[in-house]
Amino acid sequence: MKRIGMLTSGGDCQALNAAMRGVVKSVLNSGEQVEIYGFLDGYKGLIYSNFRMLTWSDFSGILTKGGTILGSSRTPFKTIKDPDENGLDKVDAMLQTYHKLRLDCLVVLGGNGTHKTANLLRQEGLNVVTLPKTIDNDLYGTDMTFGFQSAVDIATDCIDMIHTTASSHGRVFIVEVMGHKVGYLTLNAGIAGGADIILIPEIPYDIDKIVDKINERNAKGSRFTILAVAEGAISKEDAKLSKKEYKEKMKNYKYPSVSYEIADKILEKTGKEVRVTVPGHTQRGGSPCPYDRVFASRLGAEAGKLILKGEYGFMVGYRNREIVKVPLEEVAGKLKMVDPKSAIIKEAKMLGISFGD
Amino acid sequence: MKRIGMLTSGGDCQALNAAMRGVVKSVLNSGEQVEIYGFLDGYKGLIYSNFRMLTWSDFSGILTKGGTILGSSRTPFKTIKDPDENGLDKVDAMLQTYHKLRLDCLVVLGGNGTHKTANLLRQEGLNVVTLPKTIDNDLYGTDMTFGFQSAVDIATDCIDMIHTTASSHGRVFIVEVMGHKVGYLTLNAGIAGGADIILIPEIPYDIDKIVDKINERNAKGSRFTILAVAEGAISKEDAKLSKKEYKEKMKNYKYPSVSYEIADKILEKTGKEVRVTVPGHTQRGGSPCPYDRVFASRLGAEAGKLILKGEYGFMVGYRNREIVKVPLEEVAGKLKMVDPKSAIIKEAKMLGISFGD
Amino acid sequence: MKRIGMLTSGGDCQALNAAMRGVVKSVLNSGEQVEIYGFLDGYKGLIYSNFRMLTWSDFSGILTKGGTILGSSRTPFKTIKDPDENGLDKVDAMLQTYHKLRLDCLVVLGGNGTHKTANLLRQEGLNVVTLPKTIDNDLYGTDMTFGFQSAVDIATDCIDMIHTTASSHGRVFIVEVMGHKVGYLTLNAGIAGGADIILIPEIPYDIDKIVDKINERNAKGSRFTILAVAEGAISKEDAKLSKKEYKEKMKNYKYPSVSYEIADKILEKTGKEVRVTVPGHTQRGGSPCPYDRVFASRLGAEAGKLILKGEYGFMVGYRNREIVKVPLEEVAGKLKMVDPKSAIIKEAKMLGISFGD
Amino acid sequence: MKRIGMLTSGGDCQALNAAMRGVVKSVLNSGEQVEIYGFLDGYKGLIYSNFRMLTWSDFSGILTKGGTILGSSRTPFKTIKDPDENGLDKVDAMLQTYHKLRLDCLVVLGGNGTHKTANLLRQEGLNVVTLPKTIDNDLYGTDMTFGFQSAVDIATDCIDMIHTTASSHGRVFIVEVMGHKVGYLTLNAGIAGGADIILIPEIPYDIDKIVDKINERNAKGSRFTILAVAEGAISKEDAKLSKKEYKEKMKNYKYPSVSYEIADKILEKTGKEVRVTVPGHTQRGGSPCPYDRVFASRLGAEAGKLILKGEYGFMVGYRNREIVKVPLEEVAGKLKMVDPKSAIIKEAKMLGISFGD
Repeated sequence: MKRIGMLTSGGDCQALNAAMRGVVKSVLNSGEQVEIYGFLDGYKGLIYSNFRMLTWSDFSGILTKGGTILGSSRTPFKTIKDPDENGLDKVDAMLQTYHKLRLDCLVVLGGNGTHKTANLLRQEGLNVVTLPKTIDNDLYGTDMTFGFQSAVDIATDCIDMIHTTASSHGRVFIVEVMGHKVGYLTLNAGIAGGADIILIPEIPYDIDKIVDKINERNAKGSRFTILAVAEGAISKEDAKLSKKEYKEKMKNYKYPSVSYEIADKILEKTGKEVRVTVPGHTQRGGSPCPYDRVFASRLGAEAGKLILKGEYGFMVGYRNREIVKVPLEEVAGKLKMVDPKSAIIKEAKMLGISFGD
Repeated sequence: MKRIGMLTSGGDCQALNAAMRGVVKSVLNSGEQVEIYGFLDGYKGLIYSNFRMLTWSDFSGILTKGGTILGSSRTPFKTIKDPDENGLDKVDAMLQTYHKLRLDCLVVLGGNGTHKTANLLRQEGLNVVTLPKTIDNDLYGTDMTFGFQSAVDIATDCIDMIHTTASSHGRVFIVEVMGHKVGYLTLNAGIAGGADIILIPEIPYDIDKIVDKINERNAKGSRFTILAVAEGAISKEDAKLSKKEYKEKMKNYKYPSVSYEIADKILEKTGKEVRVTVPGHTQRGGSPCPYDRVFASRLGAEAGKLILKGEYGFMVGYRNREIVKVPLEEVAGKLKMVDPKSAIIKEAKMLGISFGD
Repeated sequence: MKRIGMLTSGGDCQALNAAMRGVVKSVLNSGEQVEIYGFLDGYKGLIYSNFRMLTWSDFSGILTKGGTILGSSRTPFKTIKDPDENGLDKVDAMLQTYHKLRLDCLVVLGGNGTHKTANLLRQEGLNVVTLPKTIDNDLYGTDMTFGFQSAVDIATDCIDMIHTTASSHGRVFIVEVMGHKVGYLTLNAGIAGGADIILIPEIPYDIDKIVDKINERNAKGSRFTILAVAEGAISKEDAKLSKKEYKEKMKNYKYPSVSYEIADKILEKTGKEVRVTVPGHTQRGGSPCPYDRVFASRLGAEAGKLILKGEYGFMVGYRNREIVKVPLEEVAGKLKMVDPKSAIIKEAKMLGISFGD
Repeated sequence: MKRIGMLTSGGDCQALNAAMRGVVKSVLNSGEQVEIYGFLDGYKGLIYSNFRMLTWSDFSGILTKGGTILGSSRTPFKTIKDPDENGLDKVDAMLQTYHKLRLDCLVVLGGNGTHKTANLLRQEGLNVVTLPKTIDNDLYGTDMTFGFQSAVDIATDCIDMIHTTASSHGRVFIVEVMGHKVGYLTLNAGIAGGADIILIPEIPYDIDKIVDKINERNAKGSRFTILAVAEGAISKEDAKLSKKEYKEKMKNYKYPSVSYEIADKILEKTGKEVRVTVPGHTQRGGSPCPYDRVFASRLGAEAGKLILKGEYGFMVGYRNREIVKVPLEEVAGKLKMVDPKSAIIKEAKMLGISFGD
């Protein structure tokens, strides 16, 4: 008999349900008796002992369902050790819930912040298995995260739709893609959507290079230009600022997001009006793409295997086309970023894409 | 032999190409000899005699293609009689182009503004046939316009995707749908997407009613609320202002759009953070949906028939499930709006949807 | 207090759930107390008193869900008066279930066969309200049925995908679209997908006319030809046979379906290999399109209104853009078919589409 | 100055255009002068010197376009050395075309058969670079081929749509997925679509195991069962036959395809009617998915790089997440198959999926 706790934490994404279904199916199909405690709304559910007993039928038919049947919330790691507004010690509360329910292990699905807390719980002696969920694909220790390819599909659809209107009107368009610190999503959606310019946090941009590219396209007879811009795109000047200076600068920032600033500068330098489209949270939503369903199901099945073997303290990740277990201490607190010198960046440049550098 | 001029004007939308293909196919299949002059970028092409001779092959394979192969631009009716920056009389220039090319007629695809200018050209003696294009479905004289259903599909997709993330996080979400003056698009996408609250220009909203609905849902255990908000949604107070007063007020408007204002007010009154998603120009883009392809093709075919018969001065429209010809003077300058007392509004209310009124 | 029975009968289609949700929401939102008895698998559930009590939450989140939460089955009208294999009188059993549960009314969602049985139950004194469900749009008394537009979307997608491979290989392709007796679905998907030849039951085809069209396209340089063929497409010779003669002929029919016969004949007469694609039951599946969601929700809401008023014996239909109640006796046993002389057929021909006639 | 010949051979698939665009963009962006000879309809174009000079604009806007702008055809390798019907030596003719046009190299996009011929041309002294195209992902020497993920998406969509109708009617459904010899496509679409049983050529099935699974599901209360069956699925008995015996057996095969045979046997053994859906060529069609667009673009760019460096005799492949050059002699004539002992098969079984073994 295994008593398994389960929670999804951080921004939701596609294939969370597929992954949980994978875990549960693989444990149940092994013939092992199981009790599943689903904690609601991320770590909050664990802290406040807010859970639902889940049965087989809760996981039936959810392979294709977006979101998470457990709900999610953001519980920032940097305040996890602070007491809550009623003075409750949150870490302590999580340990108590775990022990009170006599759980054998805790399955945690989440991204970067989630993994820091998961590692903390491991250090506190809990049996933890994690699954790498994020549309950003920025988790260290795994080549891929689920949610990523689904988000690429949605952001690409968006660029595709903008393409027809951009070409009809001969306009400059910016599609703002999710990603504050890491540009994988923007990079892939940008290439897939045939963007002419791609701006990602890892490659600070020079506005003049952007303008050059627009002018070059005009000179060649291309009436329109499409930019795929990550939320965290940053100019060369801003990239040179210290954290403090940058924070100071952003205090008086007048734009809703960086895309609008870039749009303004392009208008100023070229006289061309720029339209901005922000698909926003749609990038996290909807049914997972087949790639993510297969991937999340496989990860889930392997997590189930670890549980059956009693091997804890790992994230189930993907490296060199193999599903592997990665020690949590290797994952927590690290970010995987786009290498500006990587093959894909070079290839994108060979295709004529400008990164504004 | 027919010499046909053709242009697409105003914001682009889906099925413009399908409609033009319909016109050209039906004329060519009649056996009539044809020369087709495609004016580029809307009325601008007619004004400045900027055109391309089009052949059969230009219309092959474009049934499914978004945008317009002729390009488009906005040429505001209210300045159409003013000379351009070089002193050129624009109306005069259009007449000259038409006569110089010895055109038999001009086929114009466009929305409200476009139809005013088309009617003006008719009054000046040109043979004009028009096709009703707009994602807003706000053209007078026709039950339906092409582009509308495709835009409904896209806006609904957007709400669908937001649904999974809204329910996972228990959040309030606003999806801002296109439509400055008319709410058909928001109304239909809102019902199709299962929005809980729909705000359209024709039904001014009371912020307290919106808050009531959100609270009522919470009380019933629904963790999230989704609002479909038209760009032109307006509060009861603002709706009472005179045009001048409203303009004055908007001068210092601090929000990028009305959705952000509503989001702010909801936060203020409920303490709930609200996320705003703006699909924007994607609603005009991409391949037309099958409904629009059939509809635009049929309208195009009937326009071709009018041309063959030499019957001019009409918009080809759709009324009571029949394709009809509507005199341009009946169409021009009028807006078709959602009737707050119409059956669909009542039905939506029966479904539990709040209009904030 | 209303005690409402509900069932879905016949082949399933999209938006059944949306329609039922509409009925239930509109009744519940009226403030009326309600008990909902969901009979499982169509009339079978009513016959064998197999039902589930449904609550509000059963209808939450099903707007976008394909299929039917009640299950369905085909209960042929022509055997409805025959006793079942255990000698049970089926009609009698249905009446007994109805009365035993003291139902106020029965809501029935279905197509042609379903309506005949519904009308029979009405004649037997039951309070019946029906909703027009079918991908064939062949129900008499309503301009539109839900499921139809969703099926058009899927069949069109299929033709779109075949287009790229057909043009790459210069091949003749047949896409077989659902519809044994009525061609609306094939007609609309064919036009939307840009099919070159459309064969529907209402317009018997001449194989030589089909071959002519293929040759004509080749002569013009079009390397490929796409046929949208209804399951019930019929040749002019077969159309002349009496029912008996036709049945006799079909006894030894060697093809899986008519498309394969047509493919064979084209090969014989042109030497061109023809590929057949049969999307089959996919045309009934998946999430309803936005059009169907809105339409089914509206019909459901109006059905709810009839129930609240106690007006029974009607199908809720759609005529001239208005939702209307149609007496069941007007609907039952009649088929709505494509008129070969209708405007849409003429327009399709103007677009160059051949119907093989 | 580079004179580049280019052709696409074998069954078409998604992202052929994206890959060619990648090659051409990367060569042109290098500043090198280029002449591009596009041979039409695969090797046929090279044999009969049937080509079109391609310019930059031919490759603009084709990233998202399905099919191949060059056309394709199957030219079986086993007859490549035989003279054609007019006595022409085909290999010789290809060499002549190549030399007559003074080509620097030949870029060939294709699958298994195509690579055998490409290797032959290399042996005959031509400079050849190839790109791995196939929806089957069965090319030796590369972890992935373009077209595969797009086909997975389409086949999965098909299973998704069947799911709603299968569950509504409580039926057994077979979705027949492309793949005569190799099961990657069926395997991935099956997992992604939540199929209960997956049959692939690499794992011969036992019909009784299939029946057991169906009965087991019924016993658990699951009303329906979905099988994803590869075109080349084979029973244990048939797998034991020699090639000759098997051919003999298939001479009198009465089914259109193996799915219908399996359907028949299930009916016989369970009394359950089984519906078969064959998405067929749709799996090769339509716009490439974002994954394939990025992947094909990257491969194309690297092929361009090889051309610029004058490195020939390679397929551009993908191994361990790196794009690599693979000597053609290593690729030609080998098949990559699903290993029945691989991790993904084990994981699928952990998820409860039966392979009928």
